Amino acid sequence: MVHCEGDVTVQIAFASYLQKYRIKTDALYLAIKDAIINGTLPLHTKLASTRLLAEQYGLSRGIVTQVYDMLLAEGYVTARSGQGTFVAYRYEQPAEPPRPMHKAALSKWGERVRQLRKNQLGDGYHDHCLYPFHWGHTDMSEFPVKEWNRCMHASLRQMQEDGDVSLRDPQGDPALREAIAAYLLRNRGFAAAPSQIVIVNGSTQAITLLAQLLVEPGMAAVSEEIGYAGVKQAVAAAGARWLPAEIDGSGIIPGSWEARLLFVTPTRQFPTGAVLNLERRQQLLQWAQEREAIIVEDEYDSEFRHKGKPLEPLKALDRRDRVVYIGSFSKAMPSYMRIGYAVLPKALAEPFCAAKELYEPRATGAVEQKALAEFMKSGAYDRHLRRMKRIYGSRFELLRRLLPAELPDLFEWVESDTGLHIFGWWRDSEERYERYAAICRAEGVRWAVARHGKGGTEGLVAGGAGNEDQANRQAAVRIGCYFHFIHMSLKRLEQGVAVMKAASETLNK
Amino acid sequence: MVHCEGDVTVQIAFASYLQKYRIKTDALYLAIKDAIINGTLPLHTKLASTRLLAEQYGLSRGIVTQVYDMLLAEGYVTARSGQGTFVAYRYEQPAEPPRPMHKAALSKWGERVRQLRKNQLGDGYHDHCLYPFHWGHTDMSEFPVKEWNRCMHASLRQMQEDGDVSLRDPQGDPALREAIAAYLLRNRGFAAAPSQIVIVNGSTQAITLLAQLLVEPGMAAVSEEIGYAGVKQAVAAAGARWLPAEIDGSGIIPGSWEARLLFVTPTRQFPTGAVLNLERRQQLLQWAQEREAIIVEDEYDSEFRHKGKPLEPLKALDRRDRVVYIGSFSKAMPSYMRIGYAVLPKALAEPFCAAKELYEPRATGAVEQKALAEFMKSGAYDRHLRRMKRIYGSRFELLRRLLPAELPDLFEWVESDTGLHIFGWWRDSEERYERYAAICRAEGVRWAVARHGKGGTEGLVAGGAGNEDQANRQAAVRIGCYFHFIHMSLKRLEQGVAVMKAASETLNK
Repeated sequence: MVHCEGDVTVQIAFASYLQKYRIKTDALYLAIKDAIINGTLPLHTKLASTRLLAEQYGLSRGIVTQVYDMLLAEGYVTARSGQGTFVAYRYEQPAEPPRPMHKAALSKWGERVRQLRKNQLGDGYHDHCLYPFHWGHTDMSEFPVKEWNRCMHASLRQMQEDGDVSLRDPQGDPALREAIAAYLLRNRGFAAAPSQIVIVNGSTQAITLLAQLLVEPGMAAVSEEIGYAGVKQAVAAAGARWLPAEIDGSGIIPGSWEARLLFVTPTRQFPTGAVLNLERRQQLLQWAQEREAIIVEDEYDSEFRHKGKPLEPLKALDRRDRVVYIGSFSKAMPSYMRIGYAVLPKALAEPFCAAKELYEPRATGAVEQKALAEFMKSGAYDRHLRRMKRIYGSRFELLRRLLPAELPDLFEWVESDTGLHIFGWWRDSEERYERYAAICRAEGVRWAVARHGKGGTEGLVAGGAGNEDQANRQAAVRIGCYFHFIHMSLKRLEQGVAVMKAASETLNK
Repeated sequence: MVHCEGDVTVQIAFASYLQKYRIKTDALYLAIKDAIINGTLPLHTKLASTRLLAEQYGLSRGIVTQVYDMLLAEGYVTARSGQGTFVAYRYEQPAEPPRPMHKAALSKWGERVRQLRKNQLGDGYHDHCLYPFHWGHTDMSEFPVKEWNRCMHASLRQMQEDGDVSLRDPQGDPALREAIAAYLLRNRGFAAAPSQIVIVNGSTQAITLLAQLLVEPGMAAVSEEIGYAGVKQAVAAAGARWLPAEIDGSGIIPGSWEARLLFVTPTRQFPTGAVLNLERRQQLLQWAQEREAIIVEDEYDSEFRHKGKPLEPLKALDRRDRVVYIGSFSKAMPSYMRIGYAVLPKALAEPFCAAKELYEPRATGAVEQKALAEFMKSGAYDRHLRRMKRIYGSRFELLRRLLPAELPDLFEWVESDTGLHIFGWWRDSEERYERYAAICRAEGVRWAVARHGKGGTEGLVAGGAGNEDQANRQAAVRIGCYFHFIHMSLKRLEQGVAVMKAASETLNK
């Protein structure tokens, strides 16, 4: 009995609310509030005094007072001095049922991004399959889990001890940036100041921010005609025109593109694996100088050249400071650790940091950053790399021998002495490709595919057959297939190729 | 002696390179490469045979072959069949020394973001001071470190066991999204499907992405005339016109803004602490409905109402699905853990995810997400909240009693029964404020400040005096000061206020 004016008595459903919400305060609050909202207690109704209500429901007056205060604070009731507490909410019979928003009006950027969504990885990408050549993450069975956990635990402890001051540098843990600078000097042949290094949540973040920072809607940005889908998405989201750069067996063919931004994979063209020769590197740098352009160099697996030293990056030749170098840990560290980095020209470091901090004013993944710094500083990372080079190397040797030997006719295999996947062009018709991929898929074999047509290139779609948008295909499509292997044992690789061989026999029947 | 054509002999600096780089392969590779790059070995020079070179430097032929292969792969040399290996790099005397890029050409977005950078927190923000009222993070001395570490370690173990498949949902750990949905229903009075919840790296990421998604350059976006600086930055970065909404003692004053996006803090206006009454809430929702606008509700510290239940959010009244609710863990969890979340209208969930995935196609901070899910599911989070409510509550009671008692004249204190900071308007002149803040600062007391002038409001600048851009100030500036306390002990709070009192006496001398 909340309402007690005149002779009308309104019963609120306290008992059933108490049963549902357990706590008396919650039950009383919600019972009265709902009665107000649904019109049972209309505007200007005088509520019972706290004393009366407390008696009625066997509550302490403190609880009732507290509930009235809450309703007061929220404006459901109002208190008139000396007169009591009154309902202040005007219940209105809805003229029509509420129409929830069914489509949000987006900015042009938002509309572009919504469109992109449709081209992303199919749902089945992460599904289990026996021979998942379509992705390639660190083999965790070979990862030095104990040493890494030690670093993670130490980092966590350090953070707890730091207490309040553990707000982290949004540019990235200084110790990690130093460790990366040392690594780059030792292993990639160029000097980078830690102040030019920014830690990112994976290389895609760097790519997307750079496209946003450097190209205006309508302007052009260049990237290799087949390449990482994230680059094309970043360019499209920025509203830029995408200029595809032709590639051949030596990688990107330098052009005189009318653009101010180029994304490129010189060390090992993704995914064909071509190594860009020195002459072309010099031409790219010359182009950047003439056009006042920025070149974004993405080194996605350079740590793992199987013979000799990894090829030096374009950045090592960059005397005009026009190259952004993007590095990754995704082939060496656990895939849940989303840490990459960008080495920026001096003139770009501050705008890039400002862009990143707009989204993340504090460092993300601080525990992992500090752990990685320690992992690198202690030498564990180098030891791990050396060991994985051997292991990945033997898998590479096996696969690059087996695939051409067992499947000599279906694919034109691209020779390479480095890299963490094997690339081959499908030799036959598209229709036959679909049939072959379907047979393989049914047997648990998947691989990644890049379709490349005369009229442009479809974004890379991983996952063998079945995910692609049929309408986009061109008559003169070339189908590039690539096979990751680093997460699979030698035995698994052998079995996978055997299944593919059997499938080729089925196809030819 | 690398060059051996005719009678010219070129000595490479192998010995000194070996001393520097230790590893023979590295030393030989770099010695030859540098000799090519600096013109010592000009174009078309024939290199010594591998046999000769191996003899010369006491190396195995394997090493020399490997180095030649590397130089070949990079294009520094070329191999002519049957003739030997020749330098392929054309050294050119630079006509002028290389001019490194000194200013990058940015997109309009980039230029806006670069400008914003100048308004960000001063460098001294994180400096140690005795009484840091200017920030307010979780008191780690009261944090259940053991339970949290248990969750972190378990999460890490789980990730390692998952191995290759530990690629995480970019929308956020499903278990965490479920735990948040349960928390919201139980504590914030509204039902949200886990599919509408997106985990973000702190609430700023959500704010920035929403501004980008929803406003077109030139369009308007509304937010409270004084408020969180990140909102104004997000609006400015999107190129939108900022429409300041007036506030009074009851929070935002609803207007008929010509805009389609409103950022607001209804539960407790930031930083004044006003609670928005129900009538105004309904008016805001009505406005959103009429304008087809989106309201972004930022609940930054609602977990900690000191009396009764926290006020319900605007989202709980949102029958048209036009409110985005942004929640945070920053007052309850360690500050290194950058996890926030957004509850999106159904029609916005997909575009928002697409926008986030453009930067982060995989979940960031997966270990922390899983740990937090477990921390919430196990009940540890609720226990921690209950305990911190008591602890923060007593600090709040002390400070809201002490400040008006000890400093009755300098500030006009704003009453509130909730929140994690105390707000007061400076009563005196700006000049006197600067003097007072300087005296306090010298004694180790800092607080956060929001300047609010007739001609607009400066972005909130934390840190007492000294960081503000003098040119921006208006004659009729009002100075709002707010005092965080949750990370300070009762004794520390008492001492801090005593110092401020003494400073007020110094000021009045």
